Amino acid sequence: MNGSQAEARSGGRGRPTVATIARLAGVSAPTVSRVLNGQTGVALSTRRRVEALLREHGYRRPDGADPVALLELVFHALDSLWALELIQGVEQVAREQDLAVVLTEMQGRLTPGKAWTEQVLSRRPTGVIAVLSDLTVQQQSQLATRSIPLVVLDPTGEPLHDTPSVVATNYTGAMVATRHLLELGHRRIGMLCGNLTWPFSRARLDGFSAAMDAAGVPVDRELIRIGPLYVDGGLRDGTALLTLPEPPTAIVTTNDLQAHGVYEAARQLGMRIPDDLSVVGFDDLPFSRWAGPPMTTVRQPLQLMGAMAARMVVALANAEPLEQTRVELSTELVVRQSTAPPRRA
Amino acid sequence: MNGSQAEARSGGRGRPTVATIARLAGVSAPTVSRVLNGQTGVALSTRRRVEALLREHGYRRPDGADPVALLELVFHALDSLWALELIQGVEQVAREQDLAVVLTEMQGRLTPGKAWTEQVLSRRPTGVIAVLSDLTVQQQSQLATRSIPLVVLDPTGEPLHDTPSVVATNYTGAMVATRHLLELGHRRIGMLCGNLTWPFSRARLDGFSAAMDAAGVPVDRELIRIGPLYVDGGLRDGTALLTLPEPPTAIVTTNDLQAHGVYEAARQLGMRIPDDLSVVGFDDLPFSRWAGPPMTTVRQPLQLMGAMAARMVVALANAEPLEQTRVELSTELVVRQSTAPPRRA
Repeated sequence: MNGSQAEARSGGRGRPTVATIARLAGVSAPTVSRVLNGQTGVALSTRRRVEALLREHGYRRPDGADPVALLELVFHALDSLWALELIQGVEQVAREQDLAVVLTEMQGRLTPGKAWTEQVLSRRPTGVIAVLSDLTVQQQSQLATRSIPLVVLDPTGEPLHDTPSVVATNYTGAMVATRHLLELGHRRIGMLCGNLTWPFSRARLDGFSAAMDAAGVPVDRELIRIGPLYVDGGLRDGTALLTLPEPPTAIVTTNDLQAHGVYEAARQLGMRIPDDLSVVGFDDLPFSRWAGPPMTTVRQPLQLMGAMAARMVVALANAEPLEQTRVELSTELVVRQSTAPPRRA
Repeated sequence: MNGSQAEARSGGRGRPTVATIARLAGVSAPTVSRVLNGQTGVALSTRRRVEALLREHGYRRPDGADPVALLELVFHALDSLWALELIQGVEQVAREQDLAVVLTEMQGRLTPGKAWTEQVLSRRPTGVIAVLSDLTVQQQSQLATRSIPLVVLDPTGEPLHDTPSVVATNYTGAMVATRHLLELGHRRIGMLCGNLTWPFSRARLDGFSAAMDAAGVPVDRELIRIGPLYVDGGLRDGTALLTLPEPPTAIVTTNDLQAHGVYEAARQLGMRIPDDLSVVGFDDLPFSRWAGPPMTTVRQPLQLMGAMAARMVVALANAEPLEQTRVELSTELVVRQSTAPPRRA
């Protein structure tokens, strides 16, 4: 914030008027008022220029009824530390930008309902971040028409090709995890997947297969299971794999919660990790380094992903160009104590 | 929603005007406008009556610039599933009431700064829920002056005596947990506490002491440690207790994260739970039933606590009387596999 902005925000005298903003934007005062009141009939580029100036100069309506600067954050479900990490990243940028974060949970549904769309359109937020959610093409168009920018985080469907998105390098992450197990000497490696219509889940399976193929190790389809990305899913599918006549010596999972479920499956079967079974998670939730034993996992930079999505929304709201519309942030294998050479290597 | 409300909300014809609301409220149309524009000079009781009618009849401004109905939710930190459970409860009520939840994290600070207060006052929310946060007396007064209701959840300080609050029965919860260990035959029982200036933390220590006193078992001050309510705190203090010349045979903790730290301390020292050490958590986070072994813990009804706080805010915003201003929701001991009779009982 430069000196004049600071002065403008400090209250009273330095505060800009509608006329000031109009002069700076090169438009008439009534046009600025139309923008302030959310009325139509203002060209998109003009609206964006005026909104950017209003924000930049900390404009406040004289009656104290400021337009509320909101950042909408929509989750399909709030059920894991994974969500909390993303929220923290979004909150960090929101604080810097004086945006209030509106959090909506869809209780596991992937597409927000019509009521949500109506509410969001009437709240006229600075932008929308949708996490693991599928906005319909119509919903995406409705936001675009009102010039409300949208960024999707871990999209569950294929976003409109020009919808900006943030993901982690899921394919590479799973490939590196699998290569780690192969290098330890494992050959019989299982994989627990999530719903394969979700791009991140599909990418992780493909990364697993690519590493196996590169090492010349055939993938046994019997060792690949699709299930819920929760502890109970990992427990169920882990138990199924470990009770096969020829069980795997290592299991790659699609998230840490599944991996914790595999820990429990091993415990119930009297198997020790990593002596009897190697397990690799995906996410590196704060909890996983405290697992017994501490978990080897693929770290997703979740806070950074949340912050990146928020920065992209702010840039779009300010009509600044994005460097990339599809950002992939790097994953990193964190080797702890849940992986070791197989007993019969 | 009754028929006429549904009609009023369905758009177009049935929608009430300022004049209709004024008639229903028994005030002039300009008074309703003052309320809509957040201007002063309207008696508190009148403002509340008008606001309730506007909400009830789904009033919308003709220019589409609806007043945004916000529920502010402030956390001192978003760092645990504990927070997520509370958020889910708040979200549930917010959905029912068409409120948008604005989430603010204070990065561990307990009192929101001046900037937050200013922002909240300018957003004019339906109400504020502060979790594990200390609003200053001045902040509480500022909200009250604008008739923005405040409910505190697990207050960290003593709220103004008339500030509504929601907590769990912390004292009874810790007492029941300690009694469970005493009934198993434990006598040398340690307790890990949080900051004792926080009422919930102090109440849990007092419940522990009451159970010990009732059983005629002296409390050894050496076995009581105060530390952070995170895994690393439990690891550090758990290790300290377990390496004493005469270590405890059981440890009561102030939250599940501390208990997970004690698990790790035991693991590092080669001690088995519950054979060598009994551990009781507090919270029953979704994770704790998957710990190795599944954790005995005191369940807090976190989602219910969040929902209750939200319902209280909505009731206050509608000028409805609260049944209780200080609500204590019941905790419940969940016995799993981390507690057993002491080896040398």
